[in-house]
Amino acid sequence: MTASEGTLPATAKGRATRDRIIDAAAELILTHGVQGTTNPEVRAAAAVSGSQLSLYFPDKESLVRAVLNRRGDQVIDVTQRSAEGALDSIAALRSWAAFYAARPDSWRGGCRFGSLASDVLKSDLDLTPDVTAGFARWRTLFRDGLAAMQERGELRPDAHPDSLATILLAAFQGGMLLAQAEGSITPLNTALDGAIDYVESFALEARPR
Amino acid sequence: MTASEGTLPATAKGRATRDRIIDAAAELILTHGVQGTTNPEVRAAAAVSGSQLSLYFPDKESLVRAVLNRRGDQVIDVTQRSAEGALDSIAALRSWAAFYAARPDSWRGGCRFGSLASDVLKSDLDLTPDVTAGFARWRTLFRDGLAAMQERGELRPDAHPDSLATILLAAFQGGMLLAQAEGSITPLNTALDGAIDYVESFALEARPR
Repeated sequence: MTASEGTLPATAKGRATRDRIIDAAAELILTHGVQGTTNPEVRAAAAVSGSQLSLYFPDKESLVRAVLNRRGDQVIDVTQRSAEGALDSIAALRSWAAFYAARPDSWRGGCRFGSLASDVLKSDLDLTPDVTAGFARWRTLFRDGLAAMQERGELRPDAHPDSLATILLAAFQGGMLLAQAEGSITPLNTALDGAIDYVESFALEARPR
Repeated sequence: MTASEGTLPATAKGRATRDRIIDAAAELILTHGVQGTTNPEVRAAAAVSGSQLSLYFPDKESLVRAVLNRRGDQVIDVTQRSAEGALDSIAALRSWAAFYAARPDSWRGGCRFGSLASDVLKSDLDLTPDVTAGFARWRTLFRDGLAAMQERGELRPDAHPDSLATILLAAFQGGMLLAQAEGSITPLNTALDGAIDYVESFALEARPR
């Protein structure tokens, strides 16, 4: 969290108010998009006054930046929890994919971060660096896991953890968009299974430790 | 093109006016999104009066539907031209991917259809069936090509043309979003190369004809 996300409150009550504003804005943006979300709606949904809103978020950019960062934290958290830790085995990647397969409604609203990112990139807000950083942080999770596998001799030396991480994240983003378009989780499952099968094609037997 | 896209003009001049409106709206939506594009902007950009606009497009839904269908036609056309015909060989798929690799700025604005689709799915417009149909039409190109390869004995019998088509299209959509986020075509190249390598892992030597 940085100063450019708006003013940080000094008190617990202030922090709760600020959090409530971010949650309300995140929810509204999910449904109506960045352009379709207005200050009066955020104020009403968070039950705050105009002066409270502008105290913590002087402009729309600072509010959307805070929502983007929160969404970024959330997708990293869900990715780690669904993989039950580091993404450093084929089993962990399968567990990540299984999380969505077990939640047939998880396509609704699209990817919490990617759908918002797509929206932000199209808006007049100057938040591209935040989008870039959010995806980079997420991809690093996959890259680090794949690099650890390679280090342990579980991935062939000619595998590229950077490229494979991009392939996994692209499959997730594209699969999620197709799932939204079809109103079914199936395209996401198919895209993730394909990407993980591809990663697995570089796998070697785990060496005894 | 259907009646639900608005009124179809009887004269060549009317058709040119209608086309100009669609082009202007498509360009504005690409930059500002569906919600950020207003009637006065479309009128100004297309140099038409309010009554001309409402003659052909009585509401925003009919206008955005026409833009969506035009974008759908365009991506199918680009896909076929870049593959130099049917997508019924690994070489044709590589040629499709090479088209984007050779155009390092082609991430700008994102996928002409996918980026608009993501925007439309988030809007209040009732256009989900049009988005679904647009992706289905595009995926069929890939599916039919892969099915033809399988029929000719160039893909293993256990390959699923339907699933592989989803994997290719998801890689394109996700890769395009990551390319936009990074301001570089590299993630798209990486995602497409990975998906096509995966398809190729199901390839058999072409049988002599």
